[in-house]
Amino acid sequence: MAHKIILDTDPGIDDAMAIFAAIAHPEIELLGLTTTFGNVSVAQACMNALTLVEMSGATAPVCIGESWPMHSDPMPFPDFVHGMDGLGDQFLPPPHRRQHDQFAAPFIIEQVRQYPGEVTLVAIGPLGNLAHVLELDPGIAKLVKQVVIMGGTIEHTGNVSPVAEANIFADPHAADIVMAAEWPLVMVGLDVTYTVLFDRKLFSYIALHNRKVGPMLHRAADFYIDFYQHEHKVAGCYGHDICALTYVLKPELFQTIEGAICVVPEGIAAGQTIMKRIKGDAYFVRAWDERPLQKACMQVDAQGVIDFFRDTLTNSYWQAR
Amino acid sequence: MAHKIILDTDPGIDDAMAIFAAIAHPEIELLGLTTTFGNVSVAQACMNALTLVEMSGATAPVCIGESWPMHSDPMPFPDFVHGMDGLGDQFLPPPHRRQHDQFAAPFIIEQVRQYPGEVTLVAIGPLGNLAHVLELDPGIAKLVKQVVIMGGTIEHTGNVSPVAEANIFADPHAADIVMAAEWPLVMVGLDVTYTVLFDRKLFSYIALHNRKVGPMLHRAADFYIDFYQHEHKVAGCYGHDICALTYVLKPELFQTIEGAICVVPEGIAAGQTIMKRIKGDAYFVRAWDERPLQKACMQVDAQGVIDFFRDTLTNSYWQAR
Repeated sequence: MAHKIILDTDPGIDDAMAIFAAIAHPEIELLGLTTTFGNVSVAQACMNALTLVEMSGATAPVCIGESWPMHSDPMPFPDFVHGMDGLGDQFLPPPHRRQHDQFAAPFIIEQVRQYPGEVTLVAIGPLGNLAHVLELDPGIAKLVKQVVIMGGTIEHTGNVSPVAEANIFADPHAADIVMAAEWPLVMVGLDVTYTVLFDRKLFSYIALHNRKVGPMLHRAADFYIDFYQHEHKVAGCYGHDICALTYVLKPELFQTIEGAICVVPEGIAAGQTIMKRIKGDAYFVRAWDERPLQKACMQVDAQGVIDFFRDTLTNSYWQAR
Repeated sequence: MAHKIILDTDPGIDDAMAIFAAIAHPEIELLGLTTTFGNVSVAQACMNALTLVEMSGATAPVCIGESWPMHSDPMPFPDFVHGMDGLGDQFLPPPHRRQHDQFAAPFIIEQVRQYPGEVTLVAIGPLGNLAHVLELDPGIAKLVKQVVIMGGTIEHTGNVSPVAEANIFADPHAADIVMAAEWPLVMVGLDVTYTVLFDRKLFSYIALHNRKVGPMLHRAADFYIDFYQHEHKVAGCYGHDICALTYVLKPELFQTIEGAICVVPEGIAAGQTIMKRIKGDAYFVRAWDERPLQKACMQVDAQGVIDFFRDTLTNSYWQAR
């Protein structure tokens, strides 16, 4: 049976990769996309999601969500990573469908209540939409099958501070609400995503075998790889968001640890995802003690993720259209 | 030439080990002990320091320092680790010398100004005394040879929270002032101290070969090891404070990394020592950018520390008296 997923996203170049994979994979039933600020404004994110769905020949609903963090100051959008348009400064023609279908939080609630225990939420941007869902309908947590987020870091250094990852830092109060909820959550953070490198040859291959979205993705990836090559001195880009989607379908590629997670809301450590890895009342500081145990990915079979991505972006879905 | 050191301490059982080693080592000229709250109250710490100096037949000045953290709430004293008296509930007879010689901060300033560029400050408790020194005489930083602290953690989990070590947590505002100062600082934290285990046989050996303080230390260590055996499931105790003293004499036993360090002042990450390990303006969060580079020990030759401790606690100093 296919995995019913809602992809909560701020496209974003690696978001685009995850969206295409979610649309094309035969074992995924994509209930819809919900969008948020993050890599770009929520308006741009929603527009990009509509564009990417349309390019793929799909019909998934696209919903608009949070515009700003709950309590923290908004960060500037990282146009040096994803381009001003979020897709590598390609400035694609606008989609034919210009309107979102619904607002994100009520859409998620409606879908989860329609399919109790069946829906996986894959959140690859800041977590405002998921926090909003919990505020509107706290009972929803127990009805969600699983929450898989791209965000945070346990041992790896951060990317917006020595300890914070960008999606969590962008809305740390929302992230803390999401970590505290009684749903099964898996953090796919920098501990694993910084080991999965997509090189230029991979995108050339996809462009050649997927005439529908491959060439556009190739151009976007070139922009994205330029950033990583310059800033991180690596010959490729990290497929952060793809890792989260891969986890849904192939959890066996990942090694996880378990513990309660709190997010630092403000100050120099803002956005840090701190997991209590020791069982029992081990610490003087008790903030973690009442929280549910969540999972975090610490190791990944990187080639397995690359294979999953390449195969999904060139499978029969793309040939049929 | 001997290392002129001032040992800033809150004895404490592992502090007692470091005090004895500092007194007995031929390459150390112990200018004095300064005391602080931490493992016990500052009054008890000062009393213990006087006792330990007297037992050793030494005459080093003993100074009294900070009673409370600068801005944070005081923690309860950890009597389950060090005993109510700080020396394993031995309740030793009081020392003959009952008065401290001076207040800690002015003593440190006086000594450093008397021997500019020569004094190493070895701080093995909370850092209030060193912060007080910097407040009274900011120019002092450039006159100190080196500051070696037992405290903090970079990658290892903390011991009062998942990210904080007790000495830093006990007075995080003071620790942040100390990390920000323009003196060469080395953090000897949990990353290394949790790899240096002293077993019961070691203290039996010392008791046999050092009739002066060995039997007392053996009894104290038994109490301390009971705690670690129960809480950490290890057959020994960690020689946290000894590691800092060892670093002064044998830095070649340690591997260090370098970067600016900020201390989280409050909230769930309070007391976390966050080092920016990447050079340049790598992060959106800029708190580290104006700070001096400090060192942190990440690996240690544990047997080397054990040998140093055993040899120093049984050397000719103890036989001569």
